[in-house]
Amino acid sequence: MIKITAKDNPLIKHINKLIKSAKYRKESCEFIAEGVRLCEDAFLSDAEITALVVSETALEKYADVIKKISQSASGFYVVSNSLFSSMSDTKSPQGVLCVIKTLDKSTLFDKIKDNGKFLALDNVQDPSNLGTILRTAEAVGIDGIVMSKDCCDIYSPKVVRGSMGAVFRLPYIITETIEEFIKSNRSLTSYASVVDRNVAKITDIDFNAPCVVAIGNEGNGLKKATIEACNSSFTIPMKGRAESLNAAVAASIIIWELVK
Amino acid sequence: MIKITAKDNPLIKHINKLIKSAKYRKESCEFIAEGVRLCEDAFLSDAEITALVVSETALEKYADVIKKISQSASGFYVVSNSLFSSMSDTKSPQGVLCVIKTLDKSTLFDKIKDNGKFLALDNVQDPSNLGTILRTAEAVGIDGIVMSKDCCDIYSPKVVRGSMGAVFRLPYIITETIEEFIKSNRSLTSYASVVDRNVAKITDIDFNAPCVVAIGNEGNGLKKATIEACNSSFTIPMKGRAESLNAAVAASIIIWELVK
Repeated sequence: MIKITAKDNPLIKHINKLIKSAKYRKESCEFIAEGVRLCEDAFLSDAEITALVVSETALEKYADVIKKISQSASGFYVVSNSLFSSMSDTKSPQGVLCVIKTLDKSTLFDKIKDNGKFLALDNVQDPSNLGTILRTAEAVGIDGIVMSKDCCDIYSPKVVRGSMGAVFRLPYIITETIEEFIKSNRSLTSYASVVDRNVAKITDIDFNAPCVVAIGNEGNGLKKATIEACNSSFTIPMKGRAESLNAAVAASIIIWELVK
Repeated sequence: MIKITAKDNPLIKHINKLIKSAKYRKESCEFIAEGVRLCEDAFLSDAEITALVVSETALEKYADVIKKISQSASGFYVVSNSLFSSMSDTKSPQGVLCVIKTLDKSTLFDKIKDNGKFLALDNVQDPSNLGTILRTAEAVGIDGIVMSKDCCDIYSPKVVRGSMGAVFRLPYIITETIEEFIKSNRSLTSYASVVDRNVAKITDIDFNAPCVVAIGNEGNGLKKATIEACNSSFTIPMKGRAESLNAAVAASIIIWELVK
């Protein structure tokens, strides 16, 4: 256990940059999980923890779980409560965070990808939406996630937190485009989820065979090339003047229909 | 059309208080809708608009819709862009807001209440969740909403905005308790939505008869008295380590199963 007191300590600066910058996360191949539950999730999922950082208060308050996590962390650091707060991404920090190597789920994903139910996220931009989608996908029982590389960063603190740790457990891959994934995985029946009265209703689709459902950007929906690559399209029928659903809600209804 | 320039004009002060205080909204029986679309929604729903307030830029930019709304508003005011921004609840205000009399939907609700599908919200606390629930309820086709009086304020700017105007169109009532509503409306089959492996799965319920589904607080679920008053309970089956859904997502899946 090493005590850090200086704000300009290299590790503290590294953590601050990992919290704030997607580009820096990509370059360093590391990301941050904050909070007792998320750090325990990382530990239980055998994620590679390069540093466990805790506040003085947390060191006493969460002694048992910190001891457990510290045994699998390459480094273990204690900082003052105020130094922890200055780094934290949350309003009331619990005082526990981990620096974690970005996960490689591609082998796991490849093993299952011919036989399961998958979501393909095409340019989903909002970290809260992505976090909610991952959380819902795990809770309802989706087998894996495909993301186009123009989706928001899965390692952003908001996504990691919003996913309730699903990011550690769900198999996923990041592909150049969803169109490409669909075209090279024809063993999966592919569906484009669109807002269009002229296509099939989601309730008329039989999702029993292995399949992938593509979900698009919050404002613009799916790319045209993605829709064209899919075997067919469906829509969620809607009523009322607004005739619209929140993006995370629409995705959740699709996930539910796909698996239930 | 009256021009207002002073920050301490009584109407400006009134609007600021309506935006910020649920208590003040209750006392004055008025609330705020902000944004072109929402103000048009209020107009189209025959809400009683006591004041239409627009910025100088909006007056030109949205001339047609402002003219339309102003004809049914008791007062019509123009303010500088900076004065509008100082009042606004949003980051990039469009420059259009209405002061509106709180709606009385109880007559409408009473007409339909023996024959339809209803949600009963028991102490739902988060305005974003309430807004999303109202928006989803309208889009999917719920007939009406019952809220316990300890729910967050349906007239909070966040709820009005998040509902995408559903607040103007959905019949709803606010009752002392959901328990009381269920006990005095036995023509509706009542269901408690709970997290409990020992009750029926939502997919095993036949929601064909007129019914009401009770949804509880984000952290604590339904009150015990509400669950006991209901004819039966159901749960959304969940997998994964987290075994949890975001409150708005869970409500959306329930709404979807109830109506689709």
